[in-house]
Amino acid sequence: MYVILVYDISFEENGQKVLSKVFKICKKYLHHVQNSVFEGDLTEYQILALKAELNVHVRKNLDSIIIFKSRNKKWLDKELWGIQEDKTSNFL
Amino acid sequence: MYVILVYDISFEENGQKVLSKVFKICKKYLHHVQNSVFEGDLTEYQILALKAELNVHVRKNLDSIIIFKSRNKKWLDKELWGIQEDKTSNFL
Repeated sequence: MYVILVYDISFEENGQKVLSKVFKICKKYLHHVQNSVFEGDLTEYQILALKAELNVHVRKNLDSIIIFKSRNKKWLDKELWGIQEDKTSNFL
Repeated sequence: MYVILVYDISFEENGQKVLSKVFKICKKYLHHVQNSVFEGDLTEYQILALKAELNVHVRKNLDSIIIFKSRNKKWLDKELWGIQEDKTSNFL
């Protein structure tokens, strides 16, 4: 399953700490391709594990996470303009 | 063609103005679903028109735009956690 994950973490109520945790969790499972955008090929089990980890930190009343899933990477074309995320970026 | 567009506009060199222009152009073609994330169903012609408009403002050395395209919306599942973008948001 090809996954695109985008998040918008509020800076309210210690949001910086949440942001750093969410970023690190996403980096474990997916490629960081833009500011708050990650993508990658995951199994259903990995998706469940990723969501379980995120669920501990994400505040449903403050933050937003969208996960797009395509059953096959071939069904998804991608076009990138401008600068690419630095592959070694460990923090956004 | 189902499109997901994400952008990361640098605040350098008058970036706030670029951001506002890019946001308004994207709003013309797509639904604003999260901070810098838009989605919607577009024809090939509309995608070309959107890109032509964005191309005037986006700085390839500073900004980043990623366009994911799925030939069919049915091939793309979407999951949303937390707060939804306010449908009437006219500025991020």
